Amino acid sequence: MSERLFSQSTGMFIAETHTEGMTWFFSVDRFLVEGKSQFQQYQIVEIPVFGKTLFLDYKIQSSLLDEYVYHESMVQPAMVTHPDPKKVLVCGGGEGATLWQALQHNTVKEAHMVDLDEELIEWVKVHMTEWHKGCFDDPRVSLVHQDARRWVEDHKGFAYDVILSDLPGPHEGSPARMLYTREYFQHIANALSDDGLFVLQSGACNETYPYLFAQIHATLDSMKDTFPIVRGYYGLVTTFQMPWGFILASKEHDPLELDAAALSQRLASRGVMNRYATPRFMPSMFVLPEYMLRAIEQHGKVLTDAEPFLWTA
Amino acid sequence: MSERLFSQSTGMFIAETHTEGMTWFFSVDRFLVEGKSQFQQYQIVEIPVFGKTLFLDYKIQSSLLDEYVYHESMVQPAMVTHPDPKKVLVCGGGEGATLWQALQHNTVKEAHMVDLDEELIEWVKVHMTEWHKGCFDDPRVSLVHQDARRWVEDHKGFAYDVILSDLPGPHEGSPARMLYTREYFQHIANALSDDGLFVLQSGACNETYPYLFAQIHATLDSMKDTFPIVRGYYGLVTTFQMPWGFILASKEHDPLELDAAALSQRLASRGVMNRYATPRFMPSMFVLPEYMLRAIEQHGKVLTDAEPFLWTA
Amino acid sequence: MSERLFSQSTGMFIAETHTEGMTWFFSVDRFLVEGKSQFQQYQIVEIPVFGKTLFLDYKIQSSLLDEYVYHESMVQPAMVTHPDPKKVLVCGGGEGATLWQALQHNTVKEAHMVDLDEELIEWVKVHMTEWHKGCFDDPRVSLVHQDARRWVEDHKGFAYDVILSDLPGPHEGSPARMLYTREYFQHIANALSDDGLFVLQSGACNETYPYLFAQIHATLDSMKDTFPIVRGYYGLVTTFQMPWGFILASKEHDPLELDAAALSQRLASRGVMNRYATPRFMPSMFVLPEYMLRAIEQHGKVLTDAEPFLWTA
Amino acid sequence: MSERLFSQSTGMFIAETHTEGMTWFFSVDRFLVEGKSQFQQYQIVEIPVFGKTLFLDYKIQSSLLDEYVYHESMVQPAMVTHPDPKKVLVCGGGEGATLWQALQHNTVKEAHMVDLDEELIEWVKVHMTEWHKGCFDDPRVSLVHQDARRWVEDHKGFAYDVILSDLPGPHEGSPARMLYTREYFQHIANALSDDGLFVLQSGACNETYPYLFAQIHATLDSMKDTFPIVRGYYGLVTTFQMPWGFILASKEHDPLELDAAALSQRLASRGVMNRYATPRFMPSMFVLPEYMLRAIEQHGKVLTDAEPFLWTA
Repeated sequence: MSERLFSQSTGMFIAETHTEGMTWFFSVDRFLVEGKSQFQQYQIVEIPVFGKTLFLDYKIQSSLLDEYVYHESMVQPAMVTHPDPKKVLVCGGGEGATLWQALQHNTVKEAHMVDLDEELIEWVKVHMTEWHKGCFDDPRVSLVHQDARRWVEDHKGFAYDVILSDLPGPHEGSPARMLYTREYFQHIANALSDDGLFVLQSGACNETYPYLFAQIHATLDSMKDTFPIVRGYYGLVTTFQMPWGFILASKEHDPLELDAAALSQRLASRGVMNRYATPRFMPSMFVLPEYMLRAIEQHGKVLTDAEPFLWTA
Repeated sequence: MSERLFSQSTGMFIAETHTEGMTWFFSVDRFLVEGKSQFQQYQIVEIPVFGKTLFLDYKIQSSLLDEYVYHESMVQPAMVTHPDPKKVLVCGGGEGATLWQALQHNTVKEAHMVDLDEELIEWVKVHMTEWHKGCFDDPRVSLVHQDARRWVEDHKGFAYDVILSDLPGPHEGSPARMLYTREYFQHIANALSDDGLFVLQSGACNETYPYLFAQIHATLDSMKDTFPIVRGYYGLVTTFQMPWGFILASKEHDPLELDAAALSQRLASRGVMNRYATPRFMPSMFVLPEYMLRAIEQHGKVLTDAEPFLWTA
Repeated sequence: MSERLFSQSTGMFIAETHTEGMTWFFSVDRFLVEGKSQFQQYQIVEIPVFGKTLFLDYKIQSSLLDEYVYHESMVQPAMVTHPDPKKVLVCGGGEGATLWQALQHNTVKEAHMVDLDEELIEWVKVHMTEWHKGCFDDPRVSLVHQDARRWVEDHKGFAYDVILSDLPGPHEGSPARMLYTREYFQHIANALSDDGLFVLQSGACNETYPYLFAQIHATLDSMKDTFPIVRGYYGLVTTFQMPWGFILASKEHDPLELDAAALSQRLASRGVMNRYATPRFMPSMFVLPEYMLRAIEQHGKVLTDAEPFLWTA
Repeated sequence: MSERLFSQSTGMFIAETHTEGMTWFFSVDRFLVEGKSQFQQYQIVEIPVFGKTLFLDYKIQSSLLDEYVYHESMVQPAMVTHPDPKKVLVCGGGEGATLWQALQHNTVKEAHMVDLDEELIEWVKVHMTEWHKGCFDDPRVSLVHQDARRWVEDHKGFAYDVILSDLPGPHEGSPARMLYTREYFQHIANALSDDGLFVLQSGACNETYPYLFAQIHATLDSMKDTFPIVRGYYGLVTTFQMPWGFILASKEHDPLELDAAALSQRLASRGVMNRYATPRFMPSMFVLPEYMLRAIEQHGKVLTDAEPFLWTA
């Protein structure tokens, strides 16, 4: 055994604390852009192994290493579950990759993206082409900078087929706080078509912080009249150091009804080639680990505008 | 947005670097024991959220938060796959939890545990009862402190039903280096019964470091005459900040042949109640993500005594 | 230039934050003892370069590298300035080195040490002999575990020649809070002889945090009837990453009246051999940098029981 | 005592390791510029408490908090010691503040600054006006981007009155390596006037790393025929977390011959107002602590082109 195994840090780092137990220090090779918009701090940096990476408010958002894992998990199960998604809404999703994933389905005629932070998206357009691949210029796309909740309320009856909610967590003081409540989910339902689907990123799917996932799940479970089908699932996002949870709420179509063969046929017919959410793999994403089932049971509570999510570190 | 989101560190930490991209700083509330044996540095500490935790050479090994996830993943698929495991060998597994998991199967008559580090295990006996639950005193158990490779070579023809390899990774200079090679796996085969199974922890199952898993897989794949069945799988180990890989090599029995009902029946008959590797969940553990399949293809190479594993950070 | 200058941390660390600008991570080779008494967290550790080191509440206290610098600075100027120090009181000074420094003066007949934390001192006795050198057993010594303020109030008229205050800073919630106020300094004066001296450690003597020093100085300056002579000075404490301040308040004797020759003669006659506060060097310790003079002017305010020190990070 | 004193890091940091014992993590509020020139990595950042700060190769160089302490220490003792400095050379000194300090002396007719790194200085001109105060445009100034050693060799007989060496330390692989050797110091002497002075920044003046200072001192001490007067001194540079050493080598004039009154008169006559190196304080800067005298004795060795400085962490 070598006398001294230890080493010490030199260089630039971004640190993110996840619960009281642990902090990640990411080594930064280069800052491509770093600043503070009206809504958040942002950094687009290069990190060894991860490659180009986006941080918002010092929380890692996605990296070139596996942004496809996060964004396919975010988008593909909902899109493939709908038999003919024509009108799609993306809430948040600043990197443009959520939008790009949706647009891969050649059924889509109209895609709206609503993201508050124009300053950030201007930088994304310059520095994160690997994510959006120019899709902001797709003629099917409208990009709007306003509050997602207002937009959704204003589009009651617009009959979106799929709504994809790729928003920051409901931290205290965040504009996203009211985008994780029963009332908001009802507005979402009102903006969906009669067989529409809604999916939202729902936080960590691990044992250090299952609380957000559990409470969103419980909230959607409490709306069975609106969303008879609620399916939690997860993606193995290496960039996040943990499995990441998503919850799909559907008026009619159930992702569990599609087996690998059906998925394969549907994706092929729409010209979609997934690298993570493949027909072989996608069904296993819906098999939640027991600890998440226990968390839903133990920590589930209904989130409302009056009592929104509270971080409990 | 608050003016300053940042905060700084105060307190005790253990830092572990995982690839060039990232370091984890774990907050330590208390050191229960800290020292250096003949073979390694060790700390048994208390970490917020994780609870009691073991580090070896500054690498996190398991924590009370979810040691059951790691150890059930390590042990249960192999044990349940064998129709009647009587003789079991644990290589490494210092916390005693791998041994404990195996002993849950009431078919077991004789369990050998071979771990080099007597000093560490003495501390484990005192401070980590939640892991071993006193099973070192089980009359079926023999605990030996010697090199696992020598033991396995000396037990050619002993006809173990299951061999569980819960060893540190093959780092340069580590005594475990030669426990991840084709030659060693052949010795393992020689010590197994004709329908025996072997499983080994095989490192990260994520995209920052899939290399060890890929090369172990390739090495076992190259031994189809010895082990016709090779099945990689993973467990969602929150403590490790990543899915963790295991590879099962079997002479006859195939874990994929057992569905939830069969698993349920077999576990019940042996008095085993899993919390993670449940009949419902276990089959999904064997569905490797595409990136691991790609890694096996791209980075797989056969590990031999002459050319053992090389860390390539 | 090498491609990558950066490196990352592995190992055990204690982190101490000093103002919002900076955190020090000290590498820990070994924990000799670590725990929490009724009053504080403590660690006695081994750090490369620094050697054995004491932390209290995660603030570095002294290390073998240069504990002599801190403790000679703490003690020697006051002791040598008094022409015949017979009765000495040490407040705090848990390592025992402040006491040891005072006892070097063969004029001393009686030395009281008052330190709240018996648990800590029991560990100091075992693990920090390099500091106290067994002096707790010196027949001139009485060691008492109680609040220093009470002791001082109870010893009105006891006529100590020198009182040495080696206490933690007046952090919020600390028992030391009321040991940095005008009222307390008056009790000190009452316990001193008519030509007695008082010295206290007074915090950082640098530009990131000159506030405590400035306010103690201003408080003693406001008591000219009691202490006509007030002299700030500093020691170059490498362990603290900064010059450290002390303030000496005296009823009659002035350290500035002793030149190198006088210091040399007086120390020699008492059998004292300093390594840092030598006759050649000691006078320069009293030449405060301009920034401290400016800080006293700008940030000086009188600390009272009603308005004690407030940390303003 | 609060239950948990510890906290964890969030945000951007630059980490600098100083010996094996300790790493400083500086909190970065904002990156003004960050990049890599032909010669080094550089960052100009904003740090709480420190303000705007320059890092080169992840070593802190100076901050607005007290750049005046470093740069007055670097420049003023040498300038004031020469009775009539007309021709001045600055080697290195990229921030422009060393040049600015020299130009404050109205005796100066011609000031050359030789710094390799044009890219860095272009950024300094934009972002660090608080340092250089526009003095690159002073008509007395010539700024040249080339190797300082070559320049000095080419200016044999040029008769500089003062040469100020404000260079990075002689790290392995650094272009500054050969600017800390006996041979180079001889070239310096050849470029000086008959009563010229040379001063160089000489590294830490503390007990963790006194080696560079000790060896430069020993090297200049070995050249008594060339530089009969060698005076080490230090400045209390809060930004560096330690006293910082400088060594002045002189052919004729001795800084110790000027008392406060003489300094005051000379500075006033030249229109120089120091904030740190004041007439009152400057003499105390030359009183080296005993540990530095011991270090010179124990670690002093002559640095030559054949055997330049070796970092020994």
